[in-house]
Amino acid sequence: MSTRRDFLQIAGLSTLALSLPLADTLAASVFSKEDKVLRVAIMGLGSYGTRVAEAMKESKRAKLVGVISGTPSKVETWRQKYGIPDKNCYNYENFDQIKENPDIDAVYVITPNSLHKPYGIRVAKAGKHVICEKPMALNAAEGREMIAACKAAGVHLLVGYRMHFEAKTLEVVRMQRAGEFGKTLFFQGLSGFIIGDPTQWRLNRELAGGGAMMDIGIYSINGSRYMLGEEPIWVTAQEVKTDPVKFKEGVDETITFQMGFPSGAVASCLSTYALNNLDKFYLDGTKGFAEMQPSTGYGPIQARTNNGPIEREHITHQTVQMDEMAAIILDGKKPVIPVDGEEGLKDLVIVDAIYEAVKTGKKVMIG
Amino acid sequence: MSTRRDFLQIAGLSTLALSLPLADTLAASVFSKEDKVLRVAIMGLGSYGTRVAEAMKESKRAKLVGVISGTPSKVETWRQKYGIPDKNCYNYENFDQIKENPDIDAVYVITPNSLHKPYGIRVAKAGKHVICEKPMALNAAEGREMIAACKAAGVHLLVGYRMHFEAKTLEVVRMQRAGEFGKTLFFQGLSGFIIGDPTQWRLNRELAGGGAMMDIGIYSINGSRYMLGEEPIWVTAQEVKTDPVKFKEGVDETITFQMGFPSGAVASCLSTYALNNLDKFYLDGTKGFAEMQPSTGYGPIQARTNNGPIEREHITHQTVQMDEMAAIILDGKKPVIPVDGEEGLKDLVIVDAIYEAVKTGKKVMIG
Repeated sequence: MSTRRDFLQIAGLSTLALSLPLADTLAASVFSKEDKVLRVAIMGLGSYGTRVAEAMKESKRAKLVGVISGTPSKVETWRQKYGIPDKNCYNYENFDQIKENPDIDAVYVITPNSLHKPYGIRVAKAGKHVICEKPMALNAAEGREMIAACKAAGVHLLVGYRMHFEAKTLEVVRMQRAGEFGKTLFFQGLSGFIIGDPTQWRLNRELAGGGAMMDIGIYSINGSRYMLGEEPIWVTAQEVKTDPVKFKEGVDETITFQMGFPSGAVASCLSTYALNNLDKFYLDGTKGFAEMQPSTGYGPIQARTNNGPIEREHITHQTVQMDEMAAIILDGKKPVIPVDGEEGLKDLVIVDAIYEAVKTGKKVMIG
Repeated sequence: MSTRRDFLQIAGLSTLALSLPLADTLAASVFSKEDKVLRVAIMGLGSYGTRVAEAMKESKRAKLVGVISGTPSKVETWRQKYGIPDKNCYNYENFDQIKENPDIDAVYVITPNSLHKPYGIRVAKAGKHVICEKPMALNAAEGREMIAACKAAGVHLLVGYRMHFEAKTLEVVRMQRAGEFGKTLFFQGLSGFIIGDPTQWRLNRELAGGGAMMDIGIYSINGSRYMLGEEPIWVTAQEVKTDPVKFKEGVDETITFQMGFPSGAVASCLSTYALNNLDKFYLDGTKGFAEMQPSTGYGPIQARTNNGPIEREHITHQTVQMDEMAAIILDGKKPVIPVDGEEGLKDLVIVDAIYEAVKTGKKVMIG
């Protein structure tokens, strides 16, 4: 995506030169794939946005070049800290103008969940690739709108599934796909932490679209799918709330949920904002097992199988993610575990089913 | 129970001497509590019966003195191996005559599940204490019959909950009761193994009363109660069967089940005959956690909390169990975690609720 522009910038040529066959030839010869860089603007300058920005410093293929924020003081801080040119700074009113900015390839949407869809669609309409934090949207209907908008605009829609690029996770997935655990019939995902500040957007139904499930439970949903390598056909779920003051109507505190898969595998998961020490995946097969703990946290993942511990270098997840996403967008690379809109949608379909199962007390069929 | 008889035997006095106050006085002065021994007959000489017999060799308070079996060759083997007198050997037709045998205090019923109730009641009617393997019976109604029969006969009814005496388990339970984990809001129990021989009684509905749940799932049921220290108020459950040939109608292969507790705690459990590497308990509280793996197997239990590993000497579970049960019966000792009929019944009520929840697909309220 950026090869041509990068080349032209370096070569001091105007975009008019694009029509020259020579420019293309020259670009192809001078730049290898690896030289192409994805130029990213981050939308939403909160703590996770900061984490991604810091991680991108080490990225070989993705570069932070722009910001979109509703808070001028944050923009100013970031502008100075990351050397972002004024012309690449936007707010939520004017960011549609990014369409006219040839120096930005993609926007990483790291806003509260409810803004993923409207802002993601505006980014797509501005002709920029959309990278969106998970959950991609508040529900499957919104997710489908985003996919349609990105397709119509001819841009990529990627979801921030950093675990899909994590080395130990990928080794477990490789072993599972190779049948090294035999028939994998059970997955357990425990996802939770004690959430702090009760005024944060994650505890606001309008902004978060739910509670722990949207934020942390989705790791177990997503994990069950990539660990088992298949898609669930039914969901059951049970909700418990011990603190109805902190966790208001529509904001789930604790949900246990189960999923059944075509092979006969079953997943048993926990999503909670009421307990720490919950970041555990367990995959059990007829010939072996994999245990990951921590399984999705930012720090080094620990994985152990029936063959012993899996050793891999820890690289900041967001650094790897951004490098890999650049390769997907710029080189058409196919990741082992998808990170596209369809992948994000699959999780949202399950989230919808879980909330329905909680509400009705019934098994909800999927697909 | 046996003090007086033991003393009289040792003193060479006949039972007629029982009326002499002197004998009692002498018995009390010569024998400390610890000298009393519970004289046990084992009913059912299969693999678990053998395990108990071997463990009892090391027991200080319980002694194997009799056998009840339908297989004469087994009786002969045991008679020789354990030095059991002919007069203490019975079969299933004549064991009611144990009533006339002053040298047996208790019968440990280690038969297929469906025989626990009828045989247990016959033992009670013969005036002997009943020790019964878990599950105590096929369902709560049967369990209540057993409790009533033992009460009417004035004998103890104890259930073979060996984990209730296991040192590391008891330390975790102590920590939980002392509030060292804070408010414990989540318990996870994974119980399962790949069952072998498809012709064994455990896979016969009439004899086993079910499948994995009756045999191994009950560890997670029971564990959730002693680890959380409260009784569930609701149950949900989901069944999956990948091998309907091996696991016939009414014989459950894999069931995931969940329980809700008055405090707001929730338990999420797995019971299966389709996978190994499943013997894991996890208790999570607002201030800490306990992880046990293996949690209920025969070998050394491993327990770890937020404070680090729990170190305790491993003593064969059945040895400790028999010593402690002797103390309960002979000295009126109160165990930290009950092992009486009421305790067994609580698990059966949950088993019933789980099977009902599987059948109806609905949340089943308890109590």
